[in-house]
Amino acid sequence: MDNTNPQGQESSNRICRLFGIRYPIVQGGMVWCSGWRLASAVSNSGGLGLIGAGSLHPENLRHHIRQCKAATDRPFGVNIPLLYPQMQEIIDIIFEEAVKIVFTSAGSPKTWTPLLQSNGVKVAHVVSSSLFARKCEDAGVDAIVAEGFEAGGHNGREETTTLCLVPQVREATSLPLLAAGGIGSGAAMLAALDLGAEGVQIGTRFALAAESSASEAFKQRCLGMAEGDTKLLLKKIGPTRLATNGFSRKVQEAEDRGASAEELREIVGKGRAKKGIFEGEIENGMLEIGQVASQARRIEPVSEIMAGILDEYNRLASRKQPVFA
Amino acid sequence: MDNTNPQGQESSNRICRLFGIRYPIVQGGMVWCSGWRLASAVSNSGGLGLIGAGSLHPENLRHHIRQCKAATDRPFGVNIPLLYPQMQEIIDIIFEEAVKIVFTSAGSPKTWTPLLQSNGVKVAHVVSSSLFARKCEDAGVDAIVAEGFEAGGHNGREETTTLCLVPQVREATSLPLLAAGGIGSGAAMLAALDLGAEGVQIGTRFALAAESSASEAFKQRCLGMAEGDTKLLLKKIGPTRLATNGFSRKVQEAEDRGASAEELREIVGKGRAKKGIFEGEIENGMLEIGQVASQARRIEPVSEIMAGILDEYNRLASRKQPVFA
Repeated sequence: MDNTNPQGQESSNRICRLFGIRYPIVQGGMVWCSGWRLASAVSNSGGLGLIGAGSLHPENLRHHIRQCKAATDRPFGVNIPLLYPQMQEIIDIIFEEAVKIVFTSAGSPKTWTPLLQSNGVKVAHVVSSSLFARKCEDAGVDAIVAEGFEAGGHNGREETTTLCLVPQVREATSLPLLAAGGIGSGAAMLAALDLGAEGVQIGTRFALAAESSASEAFKQRCLGMAEGDTKLLLKKIGPTRLATNGFSRKVQEAEDRGASAEELREIVGKGRAKKGIFEGEIENGMLEIGQVASQARRIEPVSEIMAGILDEYNRLASRKQPVFA
Repeated sequence: MDNTNPQGQESSNRICRLFGIRYPIVQGGMVWCSGWRLASAVSNSGGLGLIGAGSLHPENLRHHIRQCKAATDRPFGVNIPLLYPQMQEIIDIIFEEAVKIVFTSAGSPKTWTPLLQSNGVKVAHVVSSSLFARKCEDAGVDAIVAEGFEAGGHNGREETTTLCLVPQVREATSLPLLAAGGIGSGAAMLAALDLGAEGVQIGTRFALAAESSASEAFKQRCLGMAEGDTKLLLKKIGPTRLATNGFSRKVQEAEDRGASAEELREIVGKGRAKKGIFEGEIENGMLEIGQVASQARRIEPVSEIMAGILDEYNRLASRKQPVFA
């Protein structure tokens, strides 16, 4: 585990210290993208990789954790949407496999945080408002991810953008803070730190990495996107950012004519995200991806994505912006 | 006109040079907020004030321009939504009153830019996509404002946030670039510059300034807002960000049941923004304001808002972010 800077001193960055990582870059846990290959690649590059439990059956999660341990000796974690139906089983596996970092989302941080922490697990929780950030602090979580409107997949109801959200969460809590949503470059990472974050969580860029388990067809579709080619849809059942395709147009058309939550649930049906992301059904599947996809150019290995972001960040952080006197 | 830095040298910032201003901070032109009092106060504080023509009858615009000239010897401009019904009259007044800076929005920059420029007017155009930024460059405008989803009032259809939009517009054009939407602090200004902007356009903070012509009731309502208290509504007739109130709930309810554009136009009716912003009908008026309103604390004079933003910006720009080696 390398959580020291080149001089061998402990990092002054709280995110790096908390998770024992070299760079304050966390790979977001994403359904059908972030198995052990992606997570271990990010951890091996000095960031924090997360296995996304949301699209894994419990025993499959155990398999991914074991593969990840074999593939890296650096820290990695598991992302658990707290609405997962078999939570107790998942938690048992986290303990049995001695996972030391868990990111939770989509539920109350109070329910599982104490149990996880009493078993030596560091807990970060994803929020979309400073109201929930304060609830996280009350629940005793170790870190917070503030995720804005531009993020892919499941999203907050308030529609607050990362630019507006991060300063408000920073003011609401003193916890170590990661910014998420719309971050896929060193410039955006620097902007996030200027706004008060201490690190970033990056989803979309890593969803399109070579090591992502998303299908080639999904990656190519997302890489060909223009600005405005994602939309926050399904607000009546749970806001979700999707790339435009036949399925999203069907949802949009239904929403435009006032379709009920029940009807929308029927249109979505079962396994729609798996179809779109994992199986590459580009027209009829659900394509969860963030706005920042239109900035991505090609499928790259994680090591190159990390190096590119860090090089740009370091270059911009070293170049002083003008002072206006 | 003071467009030099304290050493008397010309500014190295292209926005400052272009408009002859000291700080690259432009006050957004806003209906019912930005008359001559607000515009001249911003210009007198070293930024660029804009009289918002959108809510002024032509002869009233002439009155505001003359009052503004009397109140400041610094550069100021006029913001013109190009869908304005009496465009030719407005343009005639711009020339007759020798206004030297015009910001245009909501229409094609090709129609009026050449005529304005041939009469010595500098033209900036507001866009919400890099596609339109390229059209601006083709039209020969002098500067671009890239305005993101979090901005108040009329808004783009693509819903691209400032964090995602600014780097894409920066890449699409070499023109002087202002970032807008979600910017109300020095930290956000620094973030915008890190993303590639050379200055910022600020609406919401100035809409709530002492010199804004918005009603006291409107300002107090906006200052009491929490995160999530604005929403992008009216997407079928022209996306507009509004503060939550009785009127916005009526619109939301209509949209949820699939109301047509025609029905929405009927619900909005005539003079709804004037009612909400200028006359202070807080429940039944239309309250155009940006997400960043929830960061504002109190009604302040423009000079204090400007000083606060610049102090924070300069402090943060002088403090180096860590480099991650």
